Amino acid sequence: MRNNWSHIRTPTLLIDEKRVRQNIHRMVQKAKKTGKIFRPHFKTHQSRAIGEWFRDEGVSQITVSSVGMAEYFASNGWGDITIAFPCNIRQADRIDELASKIDVSILVDNSQVIKAIDKLVNHKLRVFIEIDTGSDRTGVHHENIDEVKRLHGVILEAENLEFAGIYSHAGHTYVCRTKEEVIKTAGEAISRLEFVAGSFDEKIGVCYGDTPGCSVLDDFGNFVTDLSPGNFVFYDMMQVNIGTCTPEDIGVAVICPVVTGKEQEPVVTLYGGAVHFSKEKLDDGSFGKVAQLTESAWDASIIGSLERISQEHGLVRLETGEAEPGDVLVVLPVHSCLTAECMAKYLTLNGVYLDHYQKSR
Amino acid sequence: MRNNWSHIRTPTLLIDEKRVRQNIHRMVQKAKKTGKIFRPHFKTHQSRAIGEWFRDEGVSQITVSSVGMAEYFASNGWGDITIAFPCNIRQADRIDELASKIDVSILVDNSQVIKAIDKLVNHKLRVFIEIDTGSDRTGVHHENIDEVKRLHGVILEAENLEFAGIYSHAGHTYVCRTKEEVIKTAGEAISRLEFVAGSFDEKIGVCYGDTPGCSVLDDFGNFVTDLSPGNFVFYDMMQVNIGTCTPEDIGVAVICPVVTGKEQEPVVTLYGGAVHFSKEKLDDGSFGKVAQLTESAWDASIIGSLERISQEHGLVRLETGEAEPGDVLVVLPVHSCLTAECMAKYLTLNGVYLDHYQKSR
Repeated sequence: MRNNWSHIRTPTLLIDEKRVRQNIHRMVQKAKKTGKIFRPHFKTHQSRAIGEWFRDEGVSQITVSSVGMAEYFASNGWGDITIAFPCNIRQADRIDELASKIDVSILVDNSQVIKAIDKLVNHKLRVFIEIDTGSDRTGVHHENIDEVKRLHGVILEAENLEFAGIYSHAGHTYVCRTKEEVIKTAGEAISRLEFVAGSFDEKIGVCYGDTPGCSVLDDFGNFVTDLSPGNFVFYDMMQVNIGTCTPEDIGVAVICPVVTGKEQEPVVTLYGGAVHFSKEKLDDGSFGKVAQLTESAWDASIIGSLERISQEHGLVRLETGEAEPGDVLVVLPVHSCLTAECMAKYLTLNGVYLDHYQKSR
Repeated sequence: MRNNWSHIRTPTLLIDEKRVRQNIHRMVQKAKKTGKIFRPHFKTHQSRAIGEWFRDEGVSQITVSSVGMAEYFASNGWGDITIAFPCNIRQADRIDELASKIDVSILVDNSQVIKAIDKLVNHKLRVFIEIDTGSDRTGVHHENIDEVKRLHGVILEAENLEFAGIYSHAGHTYVCRTKEEVIKTAGEAISRLEFVAGSFDEKIGVCYGDTPGCSVLDDFGNFVTDLSPGNFVFYDMMQVNIGTCTPEDIGVAVICPVVTGKEQEPVVTLYGGAVHFSKEKLDDGSFGKVAQLTESAWDASIIGSLERISQEHGLVRLETGEAEPGDVLVVLPVHSCLTAECMAKYLTLNGVYLDHYQKSR
């Protein structure tokens, strides 16, 4: 290891294109096999270049988490984008401008915003009613059919809005710790969406998306029409802990210089801290797991833990092997969405940099 | 509140110049009064513009946490910079280039790096031996005088290195929860530095820096020569919890659009999440505290808590007052260093944007 990776001078987010393309391919195939429209969430990678890898698999409809991110991808030729975040009426002018160029879908869960956004735009917007299927974050509670119907009525009366259906991110699958728990929780969330969808006379759009659920389920029922997971593109140690993937599936890792070490313990300090990884923790309190570097990639054997981080320092406890100042170690992130946001660019194993929306903001 | 702040469309990091200049002035005066050289740590603000506010107070020597940050400030006329991070020999060429233009000090805690960096540079570097005074992160343990002396010997024998003294960041003051605890812990850390410094025949440089200690102590003893705190420039809710400042001292806050709310509870959802605040938590589990907005600033009364965050969502529980979609709320950050890093620019209360190093990387 000691003589390779000489081009790495600072913490660098490596991306393994082969693993990432496999992750994309697998989910595209699952959507095809189950007959669902695939609207992958691009908030994880936030990269025009990685977007192309989805396009190579035939994807044309995408999901993002902000208006700015929608603009970024629209400028790269994506023509059908769902902004899966409660509509921010303070950005109505930008949403309207975007809707003048491409198909834009928004999320709402209250009538006040529906009425306000309708008045503030001049171009057609597709509107999903967000349903809370158990995550208790945003959305109309799944049992509150009256409110769903009321909002549906308000959308139908609006001048510039078109009802797109219902949408739910079952974020509460993230508390699961086995595949069986995910199957149960995600299955229940889908039943709740079916209950809401079933209350409509006509067939409506039903968009479901969370990486744990979409990874482990093989059947999404007859009511779900669209799938919009995001994290699966990279996966991460959190998903490993949930039981959704294996370390072999993780497509990004942060390679960091070792700057010093302790004499008495197998502990080394990395140049790599909270500004590189984010402060997301695993259940065991660690901020990432150290994988085994090979000559030009990494394999997924775990050789240590990132036990402590401060702004730029990371303290690693090695279970096997040694490292000294001047070496590099590679860390599988806890939450790849946040690590990618922190790092804001990717280096492929072939030495090519890929861009990230963060840098264009 | 509802009709003001109409220029705020997305989460925005506000900076109150008056509060920040007061924080700077107070620490500059304390350094003067106690006869210490002031080398403030710029990793908190990372801004050329805010650096000028320090210059206005007569500051000319600074501390940073990375080579890139040193380059950024050097390009803005700072001529004496300590890179307070274990020397990363993979960046030796950039350190050498920097040392060809300005006075550069580095930190080391092992002989291998001292020998390596000496061979890799052609220009003079000042070298601090880092001492671990209790934080158990990096540095030679304060009782290990033999090792300090050995490293000192290696520095003296080096061709391009000049011994600058000893350096310690007493990061373990961050676990304190009262001013009295900080006084005790910081005082002990300084005693440990004095023990090390006292083992030298000649007077040596002794740089001490952590915001809790520097904020509450009025006497740094006779051995300490330099102070290098950083966070005090903004302070934050973590420092309030430690007992180091009051909410009135906090100089930055994130103003966020309210996008939706719950019917039954005083809970609203902000456009503002982990990518804006970072995931640093207070002891009570919250990710920030909501302050009271005034017409063109904020006062420090706390009116709610940021209870949950995901990538871009923030759930606030309001203790007093109400907010509805289209309103804005302002959040005092838990850890201002990380929030500033996430936001990567500042908006003054006069409507001027100030730059952040992050954007220039």
